[in-house]
Amino acid sequence: MDNETFRRYGHEFVDWLADYFENIEDYPVKSRVTPGEILSQIPLSPPKTGEDMSEIFRDFKEVVMPGITHWQHPGWFAYFPANNSPASVLAEMLTAGLGAQCMIWQTSPAASELEERMMEWLRDMIALPSGMSGVIQDTASTATLCALLTAREVKTDFRTNEEGSSGDLRVYASSETHSSIEKGVKIAGYGKENVVYIDTDENFAMIPSLLQEAIESDIKSGKIPTCVVGTLGTTSSMGMDPLEEIGNICRKYNIWLHVDAAYAGTAALVPELRGFMKGAEMADSFVFNPHKWMLTNFDCSAYFVKDPEALVRTFEIHPEYLKTAADQKVKNYRDWGIQLGRRFRALKLWFVIRSYGLEGLQAMVKEHVGLTRQFLELLESDTRFEVLAPVQLTLVCFRYNPGGLDEETLEEVNRSLLEKVNGSGEVFLTHTTLKGRYAIRLSVGQRNTSLRQINKVWELISQHAGD
Amino acid sequence: MDNETFRRYGHEFVDWLADYFENIEDYPVKSRVTPGEILSQIPLSPPKTGEDMSEIFRDFKEVVMPGITHWQHPGWFAYFPANNSPASVLAEMLTAGLGAQCMIWQTSPAASELEERMMEWLRDMIALPSGMSGVIQDTASTATLCALLTAREVKTDFRTNEEGSSGDLRVYASSETHSSIEKGVKIAGYGKENVVYIDTDENFAMIPSLLQEAIESDIKSGKIPTCVVGTLGTTSSMGMDPLEEIGNICRKYNIWLHVDAAYAGTAALVPELRGFMKGAEMADSFVFNPHKWMLTNFDCSAYFVKDPEALVRTFEIHPEYLKTAADQKVKNYRDWGIQLGRRFRALKLWFVIRSYGLEGLQAMVKEHVGLTRQFLELLESDTRFEVLAPVQLTLVCFRYNPGGLDEETLEEVNRSLLEKVNGSGEVFLTHTTLKGRYAIRLSVGQRNTSLRQINKVWELISQHAGD
Repeated sequence: MDNETFRRYGHEFVDWLADYFENIEDYPVKSRVTPGEILSQIPLSPPKTGEDMSEIFRDFKEVVMPGITHWQHPGWFAYFPANNSPASVLAEMLTAGLGAQCMIWQTSPAASELEERMMEWLRDMIALPSGMSGVIQDTASTATLCALLTAREVKTDFRTNEEGSSGDLRVYASSETHSSIEKGVKIAGYGKENVVYIDTDENFAMIPSLLQEAIESDIKSGKIPTCVVGTLGTTSSMGMDPLEEIGNICRKYNIWLHVDAAYAGTAALVPELRGFMKGAEMADSFVFNPHKWMLTNFDCSAYFVKDPEALVRTFEIHPEYLKTAADQKVKNYRDWGIQLGRRFRALKLWFVIRSYGLEGLQAMVKEHVGLTRQFLELLESDTRFEVLAPVQLTLVCFRYNPGGLDEETLEEVNRSLLEKVNGSGEVFLTHTTLKGRYAIRLSVGQRNTSLRQINKVWELISQHAGD
Repeated sequence: MDNETFRRYGHEFVDWLADYFENIEDYPVKSRVTPGEILSQIPLSPPKTGEDMSEIFRDFKEVVMPGITHWQHPGWFAYFPANNSPASVLAEMLTAGLGAQCMIWQTSPAASELEERMMEWLRDMIALPSGMSGVIQDTASTATLCALLTAREVKTDFRTNEEGSSGDLRVYASSETHSSIEKGVKIAGYGKENVVYIDTDENFAMIPSLLQEAIESDIKSGKIPTCVVGTLGTTSSMGMDPLEEIGNICRKYNIWLHVDAAYAGTAALVPELRGFMKGAEMADSFVFNPHKWMLTNFDCSAYFVKDPEALVRTFEIHPEYLKTAADQKVKNYRDWGIQLGRRFRALKLWFVIRSYGLEGLQAMVKEHVGLTRQFLELLESDTRFEVLAPVQLTLVCFRYNPGGLDEETLEEVNRSLLEKVNGSGEVFLTHTTLKGRYAIRLSVGQRNTSLRQINKVWELISQHAGD
């Protein structure tokens, strides 16, 4: 493809994207294709000779688009948000065009230094201690794995890196913690049996006294308490672990405290919503995802640590072909995580933060929290519905419960209600279970969600509940 | 930013990118900024209120661009290629705009099914066994870590996932293997001391008899041989491990064989260049990076396995909130690797493969191999230069050695030569050490590199060598 063809299709794609953003409500939020439907339309073999972009683009529209679930749709209330923004998409265009590999400072100094400054901005924006250093990871799963690995090394004087794991290191997290903890302890060689899940209270928050008991009991039986993962905003119900009490326990027993605030962290942009962060200053590591609720394209997960040297010592490698004269003066982020190769991800953060300004981002958070409250009011005005967890920030967990139905029937009824609501194509919600009860989750966080969609989702829910 | 503003800047950015591609030779390949130069130009704090995109874009051009090292420059001979293409950049625009999170089938069926088919295409294109299944990983580092983890689990009947690591599992790789192996064994809890580096022959290829000896010796001392990493195209010198012999040893001792062909794998697109793949069919897992030398934007690493069930069993998690009705019928790639969150990376592969066609991609490979030969001829015509490794595919390792200089002086002289050549701004090469000798590396693989740049880089080298 020559440059003029690129230019022509670039313009065509920009217009298509702008139209897509404008008319996104014409699409059903959740794709309606059945398993295998897309696959069957893609030839078994690649073409021998090159095809014209017009054919490829046509197939994109006709074959791929029906199989897209529209995360940027204003009727998106499923899972968690992954909101992007015009500024972020524009930055991604430049990143793709530059095609720079940002593994070390020399391979793109601007990428490294912009990342350093953006992490400082973010750290200050959510009021983390100024001593913390940050690095962009791809996902919170990876950031949490980095935390588990660093905790493992710090606890064993970096001997596990040398000799392998001993199988007696213990990790603690609430029973509501994210699945990436289990995945991470398996990867890091702790072993799944060495994660101790601590029960939660009625707010789905870890009970600190139980944490302390578990630690004491482990120490007595010769185990080595190594890492506690505190969650701010659990996936199922937005539960908030009491970090201050947990942090004090970690200090007492010299245990690494990692805080997973993947989704909720963005709320800390707003001082009056920042209460849940109390104690976050005690964290050894902290992660939140601008790619969830801060208008920044995936992937962009902000990982902060108190002791970057421990992080680097956990991961560093020194092959000859990567040595440069600048190594002593700069940050080589290849040693701050698992991957050697790195995209220029700081650019989109810079574009987003500057384009919205701190106040613009705060306004978005407040808007979403307000919309959530409005949905809650609608829900609470209808006695057939039951709220299943305290509503924090932007997540409502509820079920239809008109009375007189046993748990099994309730699950069936709500599963069917969810299906009908999603079947409308106008909104998309997902489910979870809370203390054994099936719950419908409504998560608000899409950039373009407004009161209109809140009213619509409520209308669909209350109407189908009547069926 | 409203939609019309997005449209306007989208068009402006497309034109800027097209101009950038056209005039890329106006930039010095390697950024000339000094450490801290970019950082000092970025304010310490984020703006309170939003800024206009015109200001952000101006700063991108004035502040960021001088700090970019231009990986897409035709004078790029450093490290390895990371070539992109118009088709790939166009696809990345769409991916960014859709902003779909592709963790499971339901969250974007088209992403999942297109990934499945693209991995089949790639597998067949490089002649891997048709029984292998593929998944896109971000980097070869991550793919190799996945291999090390799966090997660990298979060898311990998935007990390490449960109980933690035992510290007696052994990994083997050549002394020329990539640094990601060391990083991976540390992460996976094998311990660095449990990697056995096997010496290489004069072609920088692993010596199979030494591998066998190491395995025998380990078994005698109670260690458990678990994984062998064979490299096709070592980073320093493009060395090729003899896979067939290594594979036979792995079969004999029931050891997992992982093949790292991150860069060289693309050459297997061309049947007559595919000789180095002999024995690849014995691999349990195999990785190559379309984001290196196949015109596809980073990140896009193709990871193939014989037994996807072992891979999935190593990583799978089953939280309630991710369960869907389609789970039994589809591939949920969240369980095929470390990260839960995933970008829609198959789209750019589809665009690239269709836009170039198999023959177009083969032509690129042949062109680069031919250019490398032409450079080698120039080098060999000048007796002041010495080739330090057999030239395979697209990498030449050499040094200036007019005779009569000791090793230390040779290193000094060549380091200075490399600096002068790179100082021109017209080309960028990097270095390595081979059996203790300092070597300049010239790697050919940029999309737009032509004989003009080959002649230019030789002119610069031979001229500065005369100084």
